[in-house]
Amino acid sequence: MPASAPLRGVIAPTLTPFNDDMTIAEDLYVAHAKRCLADGCIGLAPFGTTSEALSVGMDERMRMLEALAEAGVDPACMIPGTGLTNLPDTIKLTRHAVELGCAGAMTLPPFYFKGVPDDGLYDYFRRLIDGVADDRLQIYLYHIPQVAGVGLPVPLVRRLHQDFPRVIVGIKDSSGDWENTSALLDIEGLRVYPGSELPLVDALGKGATGCISATANINAAGIGETIRLFDTRGAEAAAAHHEAVRKFRLAVQGYAPIPVMKRLLALASGDGRWANTRPPLLPASVEEGQALAAQLAGDFGFQLAA
Amino acid sequence: MPASAPLRGVIAPTLTPFNDDMTIAEDLYVAHAKRCLADGCIGLAPFGTTSEALSVGMDERMRMLEALAEAGVDPACMIPGTGLTNLPDTIKLTRHAVELGCAGAMTLPPFYFKGVPDDGLYDYFRRLIDGVADDRLQIYLYHIPQVAGVGLPVPLVRRLHQDFPRVIVGIKDSSGDWENTSALLDIEGLRVYPGSELPLVDALGKGATGCISATANINAAGIGETIRLFDTRGAEAAAAHHEAVRKFRLAVQGYAPIPVMKRLLALASGDGRWANTRPPLLPASVEEGQALAAQLAGDFGFQLAA
Repeated sequence: MPASAPLRGVIAPTLTPFNDDMTIAEDLYVAHAKRCLADGCIGLAPFGTTSEALSVGMDERMRMLEALAEAGVDPACMIPGTGLTNLPDTIKLTRHAVELGCAGAMTLPPFYFKGVPDDGLYDYFRRLIDGVADDRLQIYLYHIPQVAGVGLPVPLVRRLHQDFPRVIVGIKDSSGDWENTSALLDIEGLRVYPGSELPLVDALGKGATGCISATANINAAGIGETIRLFDTRGAEAAAAHHEAVRKFRLAVQGYAPIPVMKRLLALASGDGRWANTRPPLLPASVEEGQALAAQLAGDFGFQLAA
Repeated sequence: MPASAPLRGVIAPTLTPFNDDMTIAEDLYVAHAKRCLADGCIGLAPFGTTSEALSVGMDERMRMLEALAEAGVDPACMIPGTGLTNLPDTIKLTRHAVELGCAGAMTLPPFYFKGVPDDGLYDYFRRLIDGVADDRLQIYLYHIPQVAGVGLPVPLVRRLHQDFPRVIVGIKDSSGDWENTSALLDIEGLRVYPGSELPLVDALGKGATGCISATANINAAGIGETIRLFDTRGAEAAAAHHEAVRKFRLAVQGYAPIPVMKRLLALASGDGRWANTRPPLLPASVEEGQALAAQLAGDFGFQLAA
């Protein structure tokens, strides 16, 4: 069975809103996912780092994917995060995503032990594929070494893609290291999503499939338009548009992005639950949210929809 | 309800043996735990780092504690590891340990996000205590920053112990940093277990409760005897005995301790399953195991029981 077509465009690792008792606010969760798609996302990557995925329990993660599907979000546009530190539970989450019909699973390397051998990481993914045991499985590796503490070196990625070309189909590279992204883009047939829109036009020029970016939670339209311009009018037109998109990203990066984006959504919607984060993250202050909102409004005329 | 008495002595974070299909070898698991106790351990810390705990699924972890209890190991001598990166599942594992009658739970800080604020870690443990909601809960914090990537600074430990004196009763300090261990030993009423026997006599001299050490899987007798000598004949007698115990530890540390100890057990027992590790760890070679066995036999007359 050939691998299904890639999702070309911007994908949001959707934020996970919490009620005041720290349960997931399912109403806000589903509405936000739909808004991201309406705003220009081609797909969703629920339970990425931006989603506080590793602060969410296994049952909650599976339940929320089902809630999206029940609310009419097509699983074929979802690449949920499924990576934990152990195989049995990662197999469980990954199999659940496959059986729901998701486009793929975005999977971290096991990240508890540090400095582990590449052969050990290879064996982990090999056993993950064996364990899920489903021809529909498509894995997007998730490389975010500065958070996970364990990364996926380019030679290992190449080996995994070559040995499992129909399963290890792509990678999200959140290293923020262009040399790494560029080397991944040289791997034939690998779908590469930079984890930020900062290098977007250069990455598209080298064949990137799109990008999976935290900021797509609030600026899907801007990022999506850069990709649309690249595809319809070429790199130069895209680059001109990209400039403001980059500055928008850098403004958000001036804060802790997850809490401040949640605070922005709380301010815009008037629903204070949006500001909640699960520990160990702490909420952003109202003042931080207001300062960023003012900056985005002043510099970009940006107004978050309520 | 007063906190129960501390376990005075050496505690083994028991190794987790795997069958060739990577399921847990329950027969070896239970037999090894019993041997550790017979060899001189006062207690067990199943599912510490040495147990490859974070490579084991939630259901497996709960099942194995039950298997120990069913086999006659008293839960009152167990302090199992229960820490994951998220609250709901950590609450589930911790509550299970409490309901089984365990002496305590050894709990990592949430370790996915790095560089998180102390207040966020504080809030995590506060919500863990609220979530378990059982007066019997006793938490031993687990500080192993070089592996987890997130540690528990001394002022935070002090604050948690002061605010929850009957719940946050102790800490396992695997930092290997004597200054840190010493500062923890200055916190009144806190039970401190160094994560290694290397500083054992100095730590006992400052009031340490015992030690929880990887090497207790194969040298419980030696470590236990050092503590017994300290208690019965004083620091000087303990220190004289401690010298060889330290050298034994340093010999094991010359290798990757988890795989090489498993290989030693495979060689001693003739059961090759003992050598298996779950990815991302790789097994130690037969040659490594033989070299360490020869060194331990030559230097210490050490012979691992089959």
